[in-house]
Amino acid sequence: MLAACHAAGVSVIAHGGLTGLVHGTDARAHEVILSLERMQRIEAVDTTQRVLVAEAGAILEQAQDAVAAAGLLLPVDIGARGSATLGGMVATNAGGNRVIRYGMMRDNLRGLEVVLADGTVLDSMNTLVKNNSGYDLKHLFIGSEGTLGIVTRVVLHLCERPAGRRVALVAVPDFAAVCTVLRQIDHAMDGRLLAFEVMWQDFYHAVTTPPALARAPLPQHYPFYVLVEASVGDDRRADPFEDTLGAALDTGIVVDAAFCKNERECAALWALRDDVAQLRRFGPLVAYDISLRLADTGHFVETVRSMIAERWPGARLWAFGHLGDGNVHLAVNVPDLDAQRRAELDALVYAPLRALRSAVSAEHGIGIEKKPWLGVSRSPAEVNVMRSLKQALDPKGVLNPGRVFDIEQRGV
Amino acid sequence: MLAACHAAGVSVIAHGGLTGLVHGTDARAHEVILSLERMQRIEAVDTTQRVLVAEAGAILEQAQDAVAAAGLLLPVDIGARGSATLGGMVATNAGGNRVIRYGMMRDNLRGLEVVLADGTVLDSMNTLVKNNSGYDLKHLFIGSEGTLGIVTRVVLHLCERPAGRRVALVAVPDFAAVCTVLRQIDHAMDGRLLAFEVMWQDFYHAVTTPPALARAPLPQHYPFYVLVEASVGDDRRADPFEDTLGAALDTGIVVDAAFCKNERECAALWALRDDVAQLRRFGPLVAYDISLRLADTGHFVETVRSMIAERWPGARLWAFGHLGDGNVHLAVNVPDLDAQRRAELDALVYAPLRALRSAVSAEHGIGIEKKPWLGVSRSPAEVNVMRSLKQALDPKGVLNPGRVFDIEQRGV
Repeated sequence: MLAACHAAGVSVIAHGGLTGLVHGTDARAHEVILSLERMQRIEAVDTTQRVLVAEAGAILEQAQDAVAAAGLLLPVDIGARGSATLGGMVATNAGGNRVIRYGMMRDNLRGLEVVLADGTVLDSMNTLVKNNSGYDLKHLFIGSEGTLGIVTRVVLHLCERPAGRRVALVAVPDFAAVCTVLRQIDHAMDGRLLAFEVMWQDFYHAVTTPPALARAPLPQHYPFYVLVEASVGDDRRADPFEDTLGAALDTGIVVDAAFCKNERECAALWALRDDVAQLRRFGPLVAYDISLRLADTGHFVETVRSMIAERWPGARLWAFGHLGDGNVHLAVNVPDLDAQRRAELDALVYAPLRALRSAVSAEHGIGIEKKPWLGVSRSPAEVNVMRSLKQALDPKGVLNPGRVFDIEQRGV
Repeated sequence: MLAACHAAGVSVIAHGGLTGLVHGTDARAHEVILSLERMQRIEAVDTTQRVLVAEAGAILEQAQDAVAAAGLLLPVDIGARGSATLGGMVATNAGGNRVIRYGMMRDNLRGLEVVLADGTVLDSMNTLVKNNSGYDLKHLFIGSEGTLGIVTRVVLHLCERPAGRRVALVAVPDFAAVCTVLRQIDHAMDGRLLAFEVMWQDFYHAVTTPPALARAPLPQHYPFYVLVEASVGDDRRADPFEDTLGAALDTGIVVDAAFCKNERECAALWALRDDVAQLRRFGPLVAYDISLRLADTGHFVETVRSMIAERWPGARLWAFGHLGDGNVHLAVNVPDLDAQRRAELDALVYAPLRALRSAVSAEHGIGIEKKPWLGVSRSPAEVNVMRSLKQALDPKGVLNPGRVFDIEQRGV
């Protein structure tokens, strides 16, 4: 298929589960859509080598279930697990809720098979942990959003399943204390911290006030709330999780805390954190997925909040995110949103990121939506190297053209 | 410097700490040696962002000390820590003893500055955990052994320091049991397993028999010995380490065990494992650094051992390695070793790896020494993509030419 399109000079857009958020898979009239939805075979779950081998169109949740049935864990987990495909997750380097412990797709991929622009099948189905035999080519294709090749099979690293988990919600008086709690709990849990999800007050208020279904486990007046999750063994003689957060409460680093007592309460707390759809009751939302240094994050959010309030009285901003990984999601509601206001809002959010050496995309990728802003996070020299790679691997520009960057504008 | 060499078409060989084992830094008469030994400044240890920023010539041990002084851990550790440089470790994707928990240099590098063949300074000094803003270019330079650019600065991810460690030596009756113990202890320690170092009987015998300094903590007649290390907290109420290995002893998966009671005993056990130099008392050694699927490893070592014994009666083979990562080191002594016998020995060890989809280099790289064998682990299509990258980034071939692969032989 790719050889034919390459020979004919026809552009090809790869489709996985279509759960992307940056319009990377939007196709135009003259482009061929290549869907991997029928390549969804789980080929092997190897419990000695601890790898999953699967076709790229396999759905994440089905792969997770197959791995769980074999007594192991496929560590990467994202909200779109019911439709996202493993190949699409590799192509976009998906992250999700447990990056702080398990990393992103890049950190969990052992090998892949990828079809190059001209139809060459590149078999790099490595199953080994360590392989310094020449360049590790798979990294070219991870996170390059289908612009350098189409992933057709994957080998994913599997982990032992933790025996159980502890989840708590803690209230924190200021952003500096958020940073302190992160280090304290990460240190105490020693490799077992699974998630550290921060909710700014406005977000917490929105997801715990009717018509939202969740009841507030803690009062709504604190500046910051953190959902902390860690794995624990069967052994309950020692409890560093409760000990550490309890000590933080004694010293005032944490000002309130609610510990989940069972799986039902854990699930309810995560449902509250994940109830982003709730924000839509205030009107249409613009969502941002950015990454900052932790030390810059508190100030950045307040700056953006006040700039937006000044520009559009009545606008609202909710902030939340995977702060353990420096990843902030902003949801913004601007009255009478139109294309011009959207462009103005984008500039307002993205432009300050340049000086902070921050990322316009933490995990969602660039696609078409963020292409105008790539230069905020990457230098002209970096974008030129990206173009050189594209030129080397897809000289006719047939793979997902116009995504991530434009090939034409050399020397930007 | 690179711009001048590029203009003049002069080859440049980058020198770090010169601790490589595959002749990657051997320079010929017409090549310029570019040493980074004076670029060794530690620029910052950021305890909030948990990163180290340093020049590429910084020595690993000095960087480790600076990080420890700030209360954090620089996780990658290798035997050559006293002279290996951070830039060289990035260029070769160094691994070491604690890959099972912390990964290799690739997994710990957040960003870098690299000078391209033509002198362009590529500033990718990212400090963020998550950054999906376009291609993640740093991966091109990690493990490519200086053939695509010269690393000049690095940003490394730092971890919380574990409160303490437990170390034990266990004896195991067969290789299948080695695999079982690995899964049991990894599961029980839940993210805290630091090392899983296997010694075959011959190796254990050699390093625990005078004139070797170490006394044997366990009798010398068992088939396999495993040094197991895990981190533990201050809390000794629960001890999954001793509980799990003790239970393995009860079921016969482990047949003998010695638990280190203090730091001195831990250090002594590691010294025994690291006393590879001891093997030189039997004559000159040829060392191999290969990576296999765990399920293939026991059989492979026995096959090589018997092939060598058949070919050269009186030859000896010692096997040991980071089995938690699938990485086996073989040390071989062949009587009257000469170039022809060396070539024959290489063929005997490497050739069977092709069918097993194994790696001729787990962590040492290819350099010049293993170049003839790259094709065992990488397909012609893969080597062609490597050549395309080399052509795109260093069209004149001035950077470390003739290392890893030859640029001339296209279409191999």
